[in-house]
Amino acid sequence: MLSKNEIKLIKSLKNKKQRHLNKMFVVEGKKSVSEFINSSFDLHKLFSININDFNMIDVNQISKSELGKISFLTNPDDHLAIFKMPDEKPLNENYLLVGLESINDPGNLGTIIRTCEWFGIKDIVCSLDSVDCYNPKVVQSAMGSLSRINITYLDLTKFLKSKSLKKFGTFIDGESVFENKISVDKGIVVFGNEANGISDDLRVLFDIKLTIPRFNNESYPESLNLSNSVGIVLSEFSRKFNEKRSL
Amino acid sequence: MLSKNEIKLIKSLKNKKQRHLNKMFVVEGKKSVSEFINSSFDLHKLFSININDFNMIDVNQISKSELGKISFLTNPDDHLAIFKMPDEKPLNENYLLVGLESINDPGNLGTIIRTCEWFGIKDIVCSLDSVDCYNPKVVQSAMGSLSRINITYLDLTKFLKSKSLKKFGTFIDGESVFENKISVDKGIVVFGNEANGISDDLRVLFDIKLTIPRFNNESYPESLNLSNSVGIVLSEFSRKFNEKRSL
Repeated sequence: MLSKNEIKLIKSLKNKKQRHLNKMFVVEGKKSVSEFINSSFDLHKLFSININDFNMIDVNQISKSELGKISFLTNPDDHLAIFKMPDEKPLNENYLLVGLESINDPGNLGTIIRTCEWFGIKDIVCSLDSVDCYNPKVVQSAMGSLSRINITYLDLTKFLKSKSLKKFGTFIDGESVFENKISVDKGIVVFGNEANGISDDLRVLFDIKLTIPRFNNESYPESLNLSNSVGIVLSEFSRKFNEKRSL
Repeated sequence: MLSKNEIKLIKSLKNKKQRHLNKMFVVEGKKSVSEFINSSFDLHKLFSININDFNMIDVNQISKSELGKISFLTNPDDHLAIFKMPDEKPLNENYLLVGLESINDPGNLGTIIRTCEWFGIKDIVCSLDSVDCYNPKVVQSAMGSLSRINITYLDLTKFLKSKSLKKFGTFIDGESVFENKISVDKGIVVFGNEANGISDDLRVLFDIKLTIPRFNNESYPESLNLSNSVGIVLSEFSRKFNEKRSL
């Protein structure tokens, strides 16, 4: 059974302001819900149309039509959980950090979180105007990786100015990321907004400006998709780091 | 002005069957429409709320509210064009081909088309059950690259069996794509369905099974996003090919 207040709370969590006022967010689907339960996140409430899918006492049985009322998905996925937002954790600067400036698209951020985990990233730092990582579309496309990656929202300009980390920025006109001398294991690599790239304010703060060279003889396409760029840069950093380690 | 028949035609082109019956599809937004006009595609009709944006005679002035009626976008983008589907073109087997089996998500296909162009791919072959490349969401996310990449739908099993090309398949359990001995300039590299990967039927047909190794010590995430995988594999092929060429 679902109470009116529960429906009201869940619906409100579609909204960023309400998520942060309540310090809660929604996760849907067996796989993602299980991964969050097995992480350091605190479960607030779990609703399920098949409570035996979870080996837990506190699962609230609901009907399919009740799930339809509260799910944010077009095709609801049997289980919906409310989790508490964690407290801010310190960054682990012994690993490469990924920075995102003014990222807009929730699907992009979710995919980037998943890709970052694949390549061993522990921390993502986002500028304050970036899309909220507890946005339901981010949670959905991150597919559980959000439960294991630490995401911090901060003033990116101040952060870069205050840190003595090695700073890599990605631009359309930088040095090729495939250049052999560019080898990275610590520091921060920053990616800009989907449409505009890294802002002029931030541009001056980088030690090395990187680019993914276009391997055709044309001037098209103008750019790569943002999450694809993150994947290519991180895979190249990882490849080089691994090669160096095995020498 | 928009006629009733024009509205009816455009709306019908949201549907795959109707697109292929009419041999037409819709492109929206100044940038994409311009790129299609400058390509080998034939323009059928162009509707615009600002006809001076195009240096052409045959632009049909429409109002913003008329555009709202015919646009497939949540935020219509000033211009909407109907283009004719091109005739099938022969594959250029002197370049690396990209194969896609049962790809489902239109946004993924669009991003893959854009990424393929970046890395100099001329031809993509898709299994017959893959999402239609003239689906409005594919056209939108390919951002003009669809006008310059040749996409062919065919029986992928028959195709792979009949060709003596070098065949690379991407799997969760293959050889690392970063292995130095894997160097590619011709042949075909195939990627499977978003959820299930390459089917068992196809699996046996590959000369080399490739994987993108996970660079963390965990068993998560289970996989990478499909378009990110395509980007990483093509960037690695391009990097090696370029390195070899410059030796």
